[in-house]
Amino acid sequence: MKNFTFQNTTKLIFGKGTIEKLAKEIPSNARLMVTFGGGSVKKNGVYEQVTRALAGREFVEFWGIEPNPRVETLRRAVALGKEKNIDYLLAVGGGSVADGTKLIAASIRCAIDPWEIVLDASKSNEILPYAIVMTLPATGSEMNLNAVISNDATDEKYGFAVSHHPEFSILDPETTFSLPDEQIAYGICDTYVHVAEQYMTTAGQSPLMDRWAEGILLTLIETAPKIRANKHDYNAMADYMLSAAMALNGYIGLGVTQDWATHDIGHELTALHGISHGQTLAIVMPGVWRVMKAQKMSKLLQYGERVWGIVDGTDAERAEWAIEHTEKFFRSLGLATRLAELNVGEKTIAEIERRFTERGNACGEGRNIDGKKTAEILRACAK
Amino acid sequence: MKNFTFQNTTKLIFGKGTIEKLAKEIPSNARLMVTFGGGSVKKNGVYEQVTRALAGREFVEFWGIEPNPRVETLRRAVALGKEKNIDYLLAVGGGSVADGTKLIAASIRCAIDPWEIVLDASKSNEILPYAIVMTLPATGSEMNLNAVISNDATDEKYGFAVSHHPEFSILDPETTFSLPDEQIAYGICDTYVHVAEQYMTTAGQSPLMDRWAEGILLTLIETAPKIRANKHDYNAMADYMLSAAMALNGYIGLGVTQDWATHDIGHELTALHGISHGQTLAIVMPGVWRVMKAQKMSKLLQYGERVWGIVDGTDAERAEWAIEHTEKFFRSLGLATRLAELNVGEKTIAEIERRFTERGNACGEGRNIDGKKTAEILRACAK
Repeated sequence: MKNFTFQNTTKLIFGKGTIEKLAKEIPSNARLMVTFGGGSVKKNGVYEQVTRALAGREFVEFWGIEPNPRVETLRRAVALGKEKNIDYLLAVGGGSVADGTKLIAASIRCAIDPWEIVLDASKSNEILPYAIVMTLPATGSEMNLNAVISNDATDEKYGFAVSHHPEFSILDPETTFSLPDEQIAYGICDTYVHVAEQYMTTAGQSPLMDRWAEGILLTLIETAPKIRANKHDYNAMADYMLSAAMALNGYIGLGVTQDWATHDIGHELTALHGISHGQTLAIVMPGVWRVMKAQKMSKLLQYGERVWGIVDGTDAERAEWAIEHTEKFFRSLGLATRLAELNVGEKTIAEIERRFTERGNACGEGRNIDGKKTAEILRACAK
Repeated sequence: MKNFTFQNTTKLIFGKGTIEKLAKEIPSNARLMVTFGGGSVKKNGVYEQVTRALAGREFVEFWGIEPNPRVETLRRAVALGKEKNIDYLLAVGGGSVADGTKLIAASIRCAIDPWEIVLDASKSNEILPYAIVMTLPATGSEMNLNAVISNDATDEKYGFAVSHHPEFSILDPETTFSLPDEQIAYGICDTYVHVAEQYMTTAGQSPLMDRWAEGILLTLIETAPKIRANKHDYNAMADYMLSAAMALNGYIGLGVTQDWATHDIGHELTALHGISHGQTLAIVMPGVWRVMKAQKMSKLLQYGERVWGIVDGTDAERAEWAIEHTEKFFRSLGLATRLAELNVGEKTIAEIERRFTERGNACGEGRNIDGKKTAEILRACAK
């Protein structure tokens, strides 16, 4: 096992009716800004629950943090925060609102442009306390330091990490009942791939973390059909919501190496074509696994056996079947698993190869996925 | 899934050579007391590593916190802490040193006797920050709020919970290489039962937490023979040490009911006969499972299948086989699984029945294990 240091200070408040606990968690003298997305929370009752919980308190609202949150939008929130001397932030929405709010929290007390903080988070000398009411399980942002921000002007999309966890996160599975089917599908896939990026690496590093990662994957596989049958199934949505939080809060990454090539490549597809994040992962991950099969063979065999019950066949067959089962699961969610299905072709592959080559820093567990290898991966999931 | 609120702020520093990170974690102006057990840390090099890490800093040493730490000993530490105006504690040792140090930390700033805090932790109005160098994986004390303290004068042993987690805990698997075999056996059993107390309850509450609990059990079952073969096997000891911390830090208890009858009954055997905690659990748990079989049937079947691969037979047979496999595992650790093996008989059973009946608060998941049921359980594991 690798040496590691781990701490996750977020207070997780989970279950139906828990939004009313908001007020007690936020200091009564906080100068609060509440951030939102496009307005779905006004339709599903969450906005009403939040404002009822904050009744009698002053707060500033900021609306319009979009999916794949844009630094252009967030700059306006930062300016408003500076103007109002905000010192506490509450994000209400999905992973994009949470991610955007992390950048706002890291920028309000800084003189530099927020995009500079995305490029180098150490340039933020102070981050305001922030909390999250999470209404779309997927990114795990509710319990980690990470955020992914897009830049329209440069067609770029990068992840960065802030220095402090959310003070608290409220997860009420009932807030997810009104999510569109495709958002749920993207979210389940995103969660699955978060686990896989920490799991499909060198075998034998931590038997316990392997079991926990496999435990999340098995839970997602068992839960997805229940949600498809009835997305008002409270327990199924709770199981999924808890899985999403546990997938990327650091727990399953203790003492093991990680990969993240699928995310790195997927981000480019979102940046260039606006394809939803979860959808990009369903396409790219099988390509990564096929092209990197030799490096990942031992773990692919373990995954195939423990998650899909594949015990017969040659190693090569079992590894391939494990990948095929995974693709079949993604397709069962209604997702595409080939670039051609979204009309993405050679021109995009060449552009992504150019970007990775230009950047120079190869990705993946072995840092051996460079521009050329990236093109090979994308061709493996082309059609 | 049950609603829950969860937070665990402990910084976990894991791996070989990590004791040297101590100094950076403790504020340089802290008035520090370092607490120890009986002196084994002077033989295995841990004391030297700790003092080297703290070189150039003043600190007070308190020695002699015994297994099943006694309030009589801890009162002396509290008096010393008050005298020296201590404001930070560092426990170096196993679960007993950690537990005792929690009571010291909760008592130094209080005017009342420490035993009053054991009986009602809310009477501690302030707890000093404390940290742990854990050298004996077992209790999970390194990453939770719990402590168990004995009172010689009254032959009592109770658990209580402090209000703050350890600031940090350092777990270096190499510090466990010199542990006596029986300590390792007790620790593995203690860890196994910590998981079971949160798992062998009503089925279907949280599929993910079930998987994670089963993951720890499977890891312990796979790791124990490796440790028996070679207790200097770094990875095996690391897997066990991580399992012990994860078993009782709250992670696997999210949204599920718990039991703890085995611990409640086992504590009485320790209080009355000085039997090691882990050993009491190996005897009592199979008795609890047999007597409460009807209530636990559904989970026993799941446990049998997923942990021991038991899929054939009637429900009654499969449940019994699952219990027998568990007993066989405990015996493979070198532990007794019957009271008669330790010369404990009817007289003790009657006394424990009397104590539980007198106390009046029944234990177990369903709060239906009263004095009479406790006697029935102890008779089920008598010989």
